[in-house]
Amino acid sequence: MRQTKVFLDESEIPKQWYNIQADLPTPMSPPLNPGTGKPLSADDMSAIFPMALLEQEMSTERWIDIPEEVLEKYLLWRPSPLYRAYNFEKLLDAPVKIYYKNEGVSPAGSHKPNTAIAQAYYNKMAGVKRISTETGAGQWGSALSMACQMFGLECRVFMVRVSYDQKPYRRLMMQTWGAECFSSPSNLTETGRRVLAENPDSPGSLGIAISEAIEDMLGDENARYSLGSVLNHVMLHQTIIGLEAQKQMEKIGEYPDVVIGCAGGGSNFAGLCLPYVRDKIHGKDISIIAAEPASCPTITRAPYAYDFGDLSQKTPLLPMYTLGHDFVPAPIHAGGLRYHGMSPIVSQLAKENIIEGRAYHQLETFDVGVKWARTEGFIPAPETHHAIAAVVDEARRAKEEGKEKVILFNWSGHGLIDLASYDAYLSGKLTDYVLPESEIDRAKKTVGQYPKL
Amino acid sequence: MRQTKVFLDESEIPKQWYNIQADLPTPMSPPLNPGTGKPLSADDMSAIFPMALLEQEMSTERWIDIPEEVLEKYLLWRPSPLYRAYNFEKLLDAPVKIYYKNEGVSPAGSHKPNTAIAQAYYNKMAGVKRISTETGAGQWGSALSMACQMFGLECRVFMVRVSYDQKPYRRLMMQTWGAECFSSPSNLTETGRRVLAENPDSPGSLGIAISEAIEDMLGDENARYSLGSVLNHVMLHQTIIGLEAQKQMEKIGEYPDVVIGCAGGGSNFAGLCLPYVRDKIHGKDISIIAAEPASCPTITRAPYAYDFGDLSQKTPLLPMYTLGHDFVPAPIHAGGLRYHGMSPIVSQLAKENIIEGRAYHQLETFDVGVKWARTEGFIPAPETHHAIAAVVDEARRAKEEGKEKVILFNWSGHGLIDLASYDAYLSGKLTDYVLPESEIDRAKKTVGQYPKL
Repeated sequence: MRQTKVFLDESEIPKQWYNIQADLPTPMSPPLNPGTGKPLSADDMSAIFPMALLEQEMSTERWIDIPEEVLEKYLLWRPSPLYRAYNFEKLLDAPVKIYYKNEGVSPAGSHKPNTAIAQAYYNKMAGVKRISTETGAGQWGSALSMACQMFGLECRVFMVRVSYDQKPYRRLMMQTWGAECFSSPSNLTETGRRVLAENPDSPGSLGIAISEAIEDMLGDENARYSLGSVLNHVMLHQTIIGLEAQKQMEKIGEYPDVVIGCAGGGSNFAGLCLPYVRDKIHGKDISIIAAEPASCPTITRAPYAYDFGDLSQKTPLLPMYTLGHDFVPAPIHAGGLRYHGMSPIVSQLAKENIIEGRAYHQLETFDVGVKWARTEGFIPAPETHHAIAAVVDEARRAKEEGKEKVILFNWSGHGLIDLASYDAYLSGKLTDYVLPESEIDRAKKTVGQYPKL
Repeated sequence: MRQTKVFLDESEIPKQWYNIQADLPTPMSPPLNPGTGKPLSADDMSAIFPMALLEQEMSTERWIDIPEEVLEKYLLWRPSPLYRAYNFEKLLDAPVKIYYKNEGVSPAGSHKPNTAIAQAYYNKMAGVKRISTETGAGQWGSALSMACQMFGLECRVFMVRVSYDQKPYRRLMMQTWGAECFSSPSNLTETGRRVLAENPDSPGSLGIAISEAIEDMLGDENARYSLGSVLNHVMLHQTIIGLEAQKQMEKIGEYPDVVIGCAGGGSNFAGLCLPYVRDKIHGKDISIIAAEPASCPTITRAPYAYDFGDLSQKTPLLPMYTLGHDFVPAPIHAGGLRYHGMSPIVSQLAKENIIEGRAYHQLETFDVGVKWARTEGFIPAPETHHAIAAVVDEARRAKEEGKEKVILFNWSGHGLIDLASYDAYLSGKLTDYVLPESEIDRAKKTVGQYPKL
């Protein structure tokens, strides 16, 4: 009988995260203090994040131990299964083997708990009582709600309005796990009130929601902020995906020619791909592809520059591909990919051509997503559709070139909470959004005021 | 590190289903032809079900081979993990170990694909083009939609109206997998039109929906009907759950003192429990508990008698605990448990005191369901809440008796599609429904007209 899934025993779960900063060909440009234009110290950020996470943010140690208490929670669903997608392969009829890491098996249904559990743990250890955060489609907010509940922390989530309205069930997940969830822009913060005054119909953005979450916790010394993507320590925690995948692929004697993840802030992409980036830096011949939405194309079209991570300029200046911190992405259903910037680590890897970006339109991503559900059974999240679109792309190229390829991708989460978007697609109500060139010009102007990279 | 999950290798998946009919102390009473009052033959049913399934329905062979094509689809999620619920144990603070089979890992999110895949396969082999079925909460309808899609069959689902309205996402799952889904009572059938004429606000029932589905396919020679519970062949297909669980428990050197499943039509309960019923019949000292809703209590309160499986008397007369085929259960959120009857196999085992029933009220089941989600992470379906309520019950008894117990239960599915019911519970809008004694009298009168058991 053919083998569909590769499991690891619980005893085989990786005990350390992998820190790409130890292996980067060029050291990363530091985040800057916007007031002084000088590199930021951990102390500058200590009112926002607990020190243990700031140390990870700046560490260049290659391997960082995963605390026992974090591993214990990981084991609720990890190691996640590695799948071979035989049925989808058959549909594509191309000379490819398709493997995927199924991160949808977590209680929250995505890869996000990998860092949520870790962040909740380190906050708890630092004596924090409450965490504020933002969320796009709600994958991150629901994961953090669960993690906070498990470690006895309060949790407050600002959810981008377009997703809050599109995906009511994610709010209900957060509430089931005991968190508070607000539509962003909200009336709870100055940032939210200002945005609503200018545009009462604002669909919101991750940039706005981040500002609201930071503003919300800054007045409370027992509260801290938590970010579900972008930052180095988040990429670090997600590497458990790729480390597991490497063990699983080794078990069946395979090594991928292509590794793919969808990329919004970059954490799902980085989680699978960074351990393979390490291999590539050390000489492996492998393509590593970040699939992003054509309506919010950072790697493929945005300038590489210092910019803020949020609308209200409360974060440091981060070195990244950015459409400008005041960019409001189109209301696509892949809410987790609606972010103006891209993780500095992923951005630098793209800048140095170690990885590449590809952009896909909403309709084609839903087309392949429905085909996936109808062959493989599991219904993918709209974010995951983007990775599948890149898989289809690679399979088509392999067929054209008559070349056999092993493709591995990160199935970042299931779409059961996103079914309203399937409804819109199946009933012909979805549209594509094309980003006009003028938005790129606007972005260049925005970032032109900050220190050069 | 403590072990949270027990996996089986794909090669260890059971290759045969277990047929309890080979081991029953008393042979089962046959289904009756309502016209003649005589036992039914397979031929009498051949316009409704393919012959291979009818043969399984009546077989007394102990082991029945699982076809290769069915195993191949099972491997998309099977063997399902066996979990130890350490965090919930800690909350209960009782001398119990709690193990559960996580059937929520299937693409449809419940145990239902175990029989959906098998039924779609046998229909396909028999040359059937289209399947009609009913569904309560939508777990069954969505599972069959997926299975039909995988085997290239059309699928039409009549969904009980109260669930159709409460759980729009389950309809969207069915549509994503290419099926048609109608609210029942519908205007598509004579049964539906008659019910609507009498009561335009009818919340519907499984009994009504079954009538509609059978009526819908009877005119089409290329169509057949499919039932997601109650019948012997459905119980048979679900035994893969218990067979896997036995292998997994053996791997860790455990044997349960108590085995628990929730029971509506009985298939989820039977799936885990029948292999353990076999052990009990052969001398094992073990409690086997079916958890049902207090608002629809068949095992615990209904008469044991011949009755129809559906409102319009289109099915044979089945020997079972029944609240009467015209009973309309209260609109509880555990839609999958809203059925007037109980599987003849499960009914007979209860009648002979090999298993026992316990009834739980809606509010207490949601209370334990939310506690589960907040400790173990995974959000359970409202049906599953009933099994958890029985676990809590058993843990309390163990504490009172100062006796250590190993409890194993079937976590029949996740509640991500049922989050609106959590919303209702968390905002204080849920109520309990107490079944008045007069309904039992009514049931006795209804079944009094049919042959005695």
